[in-house]
Amino acid sequence: MHPLDILDTPAAVLDVARLQHNLAHMQQRISALGVALRPHIKTSKCLAVVQQQLALGAQGVTVSTLKEAQQCLAAGITDITYAVGIAPAKLPQVLALRRQGAQLTILTDNLASAQAIGSFCQVQGEAIPVLIEIDTDQHRSGVAPESGLLLDLGRALHASGCLAGVLTHAGASYQCNTPAALQAMAEQERAGCVRAAERLRAAGLPCPVVSVGSTPTALSATRLHGVTEVRAGVYAFMDLVMANVGVCSADDIALSVLATVIGHQAERGWALVDAGWMAMSRDRGTQSQACDYGYGQVCDADGRLLPGWVMSGANQEHGIVGFDAAKPGAGAAPADVVQALPVGTRLRILPNHACATAAQFAGYHALQRDGTLADWPRWNHW
Amino acid sequence: MHPLDILDTPAAVLDVARLQHNLAHMQQRISALGVALRPHIKTSKCLAVVQQQLALGAQGVTVSTLKEAQQCLAAGITDITYAVGIAPAKLPQVLALRRQGAQLTILTDNLASAQAIGSFCQVQGEAIPVLIEIDTDQHRSGVAPESGLLLDLGRALHASGCLAGVLTHAGASYQCNTPAALQAMAEQERAGCVRAAERLRAAGLPCPVVSVGSTPTALSATRLHGVTEVRAGVYAFMDLVMANVGVCSADDIALSVLATVIGHQAERGWALVDAGWMAMSRDRGTQSQACDYGYGQVCDADGRLLPGWVMSGANQEHGIVGFDAAKPGAGAAPADVVQALPVGTRLRILPNHACATAAQFAGYHALQRDGTLADWPRWNHW
Repeated sequence: MHPLDILDTPAAVLDVARLQHNLAHMQQRISALGVALRPHIKTSKCLAVVQQQLALGAQGVTVSTLKEAQQCLAAGITDITYAVGIAPAKLPQVLALRRQGAQLTILTDNLASAQAIGSFCQVQGEAIPVLIEIDTDQHRSGVAPESGLLLDLGRALHASGCLAGVLTHAGASYQCNTPAALQAMAEQERAGCVRAAERLRAAGLPCPVVSVGSTPTALSATRLHGVTEVRAGVYAFMDLVMANVGVCSADDIALSVLATVIGHQAERGWALVDAGWMAMSRDRGTQSQACDYGYGQVCDADGRLLPGWVMSGANQEHGIVGFDAAKPGAGAAPADVVQALPVGTRLRILPNHACATAAQFAGYHALQRDGTLADWPRWNHW
Repeated sequence: MHPLDILDTPAAVLDVARLQHNLAHMQQRISALGVALRPHIKTSKCLAVVQQQLALGAQGVTVSTLKEAQQCLAAGITDITYAVGIAPAKLPQVLALRRQGAQLTILTDNLASAQAIGSFCQVQGEAIPVLIEIDTDQHRSGVAPESGLLLDLGRALHASGCLAGVLTHAGASYQCNTPAALQAMAEQERAGCVRAAERLRAAGLPCPVVSVGSTPTALSATRLHGVTEVRAGVYAFMDLVMANVGVCSADDIALSVLATVIGHQAERGWALVDAGWMAMSRDRGTQSQACDYGYGQVCDADGRLLPGWVMSGANQEHGIVGFDAAKPGAGAAPADVVQALPVGTRLRILPNHACATAAQFAGYHALQRDGTLADWPRWNHW
């Protein structure tokens, strides 16, 4: 009997050998560059994964929600950076977590929030460490390294004893797909964040933390001079978007969705499976990349790639699996989809975006090296 | 104090007045057409909503997962159709639910499953009612009304005492956007399913159930001759996709995501909010429609539309809110986004696809007619 046969479908399967390879590879790389790794746990939201990251040498964690912070703290993990610009209304929760023992650092990029933080800290008699978010790629939030606002923010936060440093995330790295472009983006991210730190210091302000990172830049940087820590998240599981970016292969992807064939449209060459977008998520991150995998790349139940087979369409609980001879390594189309993938066949679908697919599940079925399964729950919601 | 001020963001807010309007409107419409309504509860996955649907006259429920069936049964709701082609491995769960008191009907469109059902029922000494899925629009699964396979399936299921009727879902109706096209699709759905029933009956096979439906066709059908029941789901909440299809207005949308402004990129006219794709889902259903709302249409905290403001981009916990003067009713762009939407502003974002957005949350904050909030949990996962 196959070890996954005991699972109902759809189910999230995590290949622990691949996970551990990905975790060790990143830790070794960042350690070799001489800086700390602070993993972003928004991908796994799972204590078993976070504990392995810390055991390998990670120094603290990055979270995307205060719920993740709360759950880390409950597990004894105290060094936590909440890397979403703080909404002032969340400051009481931040303070409560700090008073329960979390060394929780927060983020802002605007004076309104900085002033709200200052007032709050004054009233509460506590200094909450704050990083200034730096915009190094114009993809989202943050202040420009050369801006006057950077120094205004630095002064405002320092006045309340809260200034802890600078942080950036070059999310634009997801649009890169050559080693040269990735290295250039990594250097742009590093140089912009370090420049912001140097300007703060030149103005007489403290800037102990210089935090950069994204999985593509973390795996492409050749030097991290001036940086104190790297954050990255999706590297733990990897996904098809990262394979298209060029920082992993499909065989590195640790997360897959186990699905069962429930029918066919033989004339159209389709197999229908019982995993739709509710299981895969609606993420179509590979749509604009070199290889569009639809809703995912199909593998057999052992996780071996079935080149050419992709989930070409999805409804809530239905996935349409079809063969595309134009996909890399696809070979010739099968004569008969009903024979190729009979009803009851179990498949594993690799996700476009692991963070989004993982979030559709309450937890993972961790397929361990010895073939046994463990239940690893997730910290979903807020 | 605003009733929603007590909520942390992001949060799923359900406007109960709009919900009840939507529920009553559909029930009246289907009742007036002389057939039963069997709501698809995959949108809400919420007992409080389902109970209101039943109180208004719904006859049984449709589910997308066996977990929904299990939860309904636990609440005393027994008349249940599981409207995803059955994976034979799920038959023991189906049987267990039936033996616990569920009148659970299942679905198939292929002989392999029909034979598996027949064998299983023979061994277990129980007949499980099965509907044959009919393909009336080539969008997904099902057998053609004129196919030989239809009769083969009917005979196979009848031999094991399981044949209960036919079911179709014209999901292609989501691509329609004129009353004429919607009415034509509703008639295509009706006619195809009724034709399949007639062919079965002409072959001497029983076909008591003739089940059709999708929200667009249910709200557009002008006659349902030969149909016994209509299924529809998203009508309960409505969404921007349905508004583009033309079967509701934006003011009918009952679900929104409460979010807080956390910063700006003033030169780009952006406000950043603390609701990203983790809250909205990655569903971009309006991308291919007449009006592309990005990740959602922005409203103020009272749910009033802010024409022109949409969530134009999203990362995991960040939403980018921008102004698009080309959107209907937008008027002129504001001179300063920082003044228009200051840090701390609370907004409510209407979703592209309510089923997908709702699934990102553990439950709803139901905003009742008297302004109070109730917690309505969801039945997530499988």
